[in-house]
Amino acid sequence: MGVDVGTLLSKMNMLTTSDHGSVVSINIFVALICACIIIGHLLEESRWMNESITALMIGICTGVVILLTSGGTSSHILVFSEDLFFIYLLPPIIFNAGFQVKKKQFFRNISTIMLFGALGTLISFIIISLGAIGIFKKMNIGSLELGDYLAIGAIFSATDSVCTLQVLNQDETPLLYSLVFGEGVVNDATSIVLFNAVQNFDLSNINSLVVLQLFGNFLYLFILSTLLGVVAGLLSAYVIKKLYFGRHSTDREVAIMICMAYLSYMLSELFSLSAILTVFFSGIVMSHYTWHNVTESSRVTTKHAFATLSFIAEIFIFLYVGMDALDIEKWKFVSDSPGTSVEVSSILLGLVLVGRAAFVFPLSFLSNLIKKSRGEKIGFRQQFIIWWAGLMRGAVSMALAYNQFTRSGYTQLRENAIMITSTITVVLFSTVVFGLITKPLIRVLLPTPKHLNRMVSSEPVTPKSFTVPLLDSEADLDGHVPRPNSLRMLLTTPSHTAHYYWRKFDDAFMRPVFGGRGFVPYVPGSPTEQNEPQWQ
Amino acid sequence: MGVDVGTLLSKMNMLTTSDHGSVVSINIFVALICACIIIGHLLEESRWMNESITALMIGICTGVVILLTSGGTSSHILVFSEDLFFIYLLPPIIFNAGFQVKKKQFFRNISTIMLFGALGTLISFIIISLGAIGIFKKMNIGSLELGDYLAIGAIFSATDSVCTLQVLNQDETPLLYSLVFGEGVVNDATSIVLFNAVQNFDLSNINSLVVLQLFGNFLYLFILSTLLGVVAGLLSAYVIKKLYFGRHSTDREVAIMICMAYLSYMLSELFSLSAILTVFFSGIVMSHYTWHNVTESSRVTTKHAFATLSFIAEIFIFLYVGMDALDIEKWKFVSDSPGTSVEVSSILLGLVLVGRAAFVFPLSFLSNLIKKSRGEKIGFRQQFIIWWAGLMRGAVSMALAYNQFTRSGYTQLRENAIMITSTITVVLFSTVVFGLITKPLIRVLLPTPKHLNRMVSSEPVTPKSFTVPLLDSEADLDGHVPRPNSLRMLLTTPSHTAHYYWRKFDDAFMRPVFGGRGFVPYVPGSPTEQNEPQWQ
Repeated sequence: MGVDVGTLLSKMNMLTTSDHGSVVSINIFVALICACIIIGHLLEESRWMNESITALMIGICTGVVILLTSGGTSSHILVFSEDLFFIYLLPPIIFNAGFQVKKKQFFRNISTIMLFGALGTLISFIIISLGAIGIFKKMNIGSLELGDYLAIGAIFSATDSVCTLQVLNQDETPLLYSLVFGEGVVNDATSIVLFNAVQNFDLSNINSLVVLQLFGNFLYLFILSTLLGVVAGLLSAYVIKKLYFGRHSTDREVAIMICMAYLSYMLSELFSLSAILTVFFSGIVMSHYTWHNVTESSRVTTKHAFATLSFIAEIFIFLYVGMDALDIEKWKFVSDSPGTSVEVSSILLGLVLVGRAAFVFPLSFLSNLIKKSRGEKIGFRQQFIIWWAGLMRGAVSMALAYNQFTRSGYTQLRENAIMITSTITVVLFSTVVFGLITKPLIRVLLPTPKHLNRMVSSEPVTPKSFTVPLLDSEADLDGHVPRPNSLRMLLTTPSHTAHYYWRKFDDAFMRPVFGGRGFVPYVPGSPTEQNEPQWQ
Repeated sequence: MGVDVGTLLSKMNMLTTSDHGSVVSINIFVALICACIIIGHLLEESRWMNESITALMIGICTGVVILLTSGGTSSHILVFSEDLFFIYLLPPIIFNAGFQVKKKQFFRNISTIMLFGALGTLISFIIISLGAIGIFKKMNIGSLELGDYLAIGAIFSATDSVCTLQVLNQDETPLLYSLVFGEGVVNDATSIVLFNAVQNFDLSNINSLVVLQLFGNFLYLFILSTLLGVVAGLLSAYVIKKLYFGRHSTDREVAIMICMAYLSYMLSELFSLSAILTVFFSGIVMSHYTWHNVTESSRVTTKHAFATLSFIAEIFIFLYVGMDALDIEKWKFVSDSPGTSVEVSSILLGLVLVGRAAFVFPLSFLSNLIKKSRGEKIGFRQQFIIWWAGLMRGAVSMALAYNQFTRSGYTQLRENAIMITSTITVVLFSTVVFGLITKPLIRVLLPTPKHLNRMVSSEPVTPKSFTVPLLDSEADLDGHVPRPNSLRMLLTTPSHTAHYYWRKFDDAFMRPVFGGRGFVPYVPGSPTEQNEPQWQ
């Protein structure tokens, strides 16, 4: 009996230690995140490093240590999990990007962003797919099918929004940031359309009707995803404005913002829409309406809490990618022919470079044709940086590669293992090398970014300065946007006209209903705030 | 080939929808949390309801809907997961409780809290175990072993800290809150010691040496767990004070506080210590030192962000318990003899009532003997509320029961299914009925809690008022605690004396090293804060 009691209670005791393996991994990850934060702070002044590269390096080092201590056998901690990435880590990053984006800058460039994100990704996809078919078929890397080649195109044509956030600074280079990051958000929708397209259409006879259908699909997905995000944002604004006048609790406001944003992401996933687009627009709407309806302390809290969550998720992703780069099972397959993996990686890297160049420069030229004002045109140096800053491939590419070439993380085929290791190599090389060079490159190519971008970078506070630098001489001294009084004006400055009508609509209908700056009485603090005594 | 492409890309497309089942459950949970927050707000003024009961009710209703729509088959969403509870939901709740606890109130009552948490839990454990052995052996509920009976004692002797947070208000009844909640924190260590004890010792010959060893084990666990929490808190304070003078980023400060707190919890789990105790003390230390070392905006952010995380986790737990109450697989076992489950539940409920009464009243009497000052004594009405407010059994009991009587959520034994359904019944009944009655009961028994608790409830801001009401006539007008100048004083007011020496040590050594109120130069805001323009 004594033994039985012992066994049973040892089982019970396991509860406290839970699944021992997962407790150990969580400990390792949290400790490494702490290390990354501290080292990232110490390297803050560094001209070259950034937090993501630090995390990536630390991740690789830890992976090596784990491999050595576990005697070369693969640990489950070293296999990439898509669910972790797409369900838990990506939403806070994209939401925060939408929440903190300079909205005016983003919407002014929306046409160029759409051009890059939709048409650009398509061009890149075609070039990389064709290149892969042309080159890899001649190499000895096993039997890849057409679907695999198209998947390679899709995996390497997508700009990684998370990497972009790391190398481009919204305050220093706002135009470049909004273009490259916006492109990364929009091309999420493009990728989904491409997948569905290849799946549903007969590729052997492509005619104009099919192209039109593809375009229709993209529009449908783009509009529905955006709409879902906007509705979620507006709903949160309305609920908080209508119900929370009593301001019972700060925590409820913050909690409902977090929950509504996450709900929009997950609903979008559920309906197979572009969840990244949805949560990005939900972030934009929440910062425009909801954020102004909450108490002062909730504003400070949301602003920093969202940024912190996003910051932790970013570090976690790069750590994770670094550690998973040592997925020994895959590397064993290519260890007999190390040349092949290097060759495949180099070819992929080359295709990425060419594929991106093939749309950035022509589409920038197109975009410059449309824009009249000299300040809005994209100069050649800026084009070069747009090309360069979008070259990095990160966790999104890893996740897609694992999904295409493995079955829940494992594979027995040599060609699949080669594709995984090549993806890992491309991700590591592009993140570290391209990432390291981007900061100095921007400093060399745009020596006085403030001067160059002055006309488009300022996002001022007061309603007056709010419009004056933006619309230049067109705004009067009171800061009102002048009524566009001729058809000529509508044609020459369409975005300014759209902005004028949007602001009229926003002031007359949207803000009175959903709240927003100036439409909610100022409340200095929540009841919790006045209860300061308990904080000593 | 066309089909192959289709299959491959449909597999790839699955990535976007991920594991469909988990996406659906996450959507349901997040939507329900939103509903709970809104309904909780609308019921704010209610005399009876609180958020936890709302969440529990909504959970049960949703469980019914899921059961009906899925045609009575069990869904994986309806089976309780311990990992989810202990690794993700519990840490933010306990950490926030430590972070926001009235430290003075807590430490003044530390002797009573320890008495309740250690000796009280032991008394309750013995009574419930003996009661279960005596009564259940005579009933027809299958073959339960001694280990099972002892487990029943352990499961139902532990006060649920999460439930306590819901029914007792720190501002209204600070003494009761600190006693009952503190007891809940301390008895986590007691439970672990009890488990290990039953496992390692030969129960047949209990002598004074064994009792002494048990006591030694408890002290070891208590001290080590506390120490780990304190060290984690001090380390975070030191790191932030030493490294962050430049105040590069608010996000880093908040991120490192979150990570260090979570790391302390997980390390404690790893070393089989009491993680609840660890993270509770880490919260206390962080609010005393670290919180004062960060920027103003980080202070507001951490204060509200931790409260929000805790708030969401609490709602989630009650929703989850409500939904899991309909674990149909277990209920099927007892459906042939519904009387047995009701009988077992009633007996357990009765044992809980008796077991708690058996230590609250005697130990309160003991505690009153020690305390000299009339204001610190626990009146009979307060004893009654301490007894009542600790009667609720919640998610911790559920988790322990699932761990003891199932194998990763499933069981095929009738007696185990009966114990699970009885635990669910006790949890639901105690949370709803006892929870509903607690608020009105406090209002009836303590009609003017402010008057009754005035001497112990005030936790003022300035250094002056900081000590005056606390130490009454003993503090001089400058707010300094007088030096205890005689041995008599040390003996009559030991806690005041301890407080005096602690403050001396704190001012002379701790605060200069680790920071804290008054030892860190005031920094109005982080660089991000000054960059307000981007927020329009």
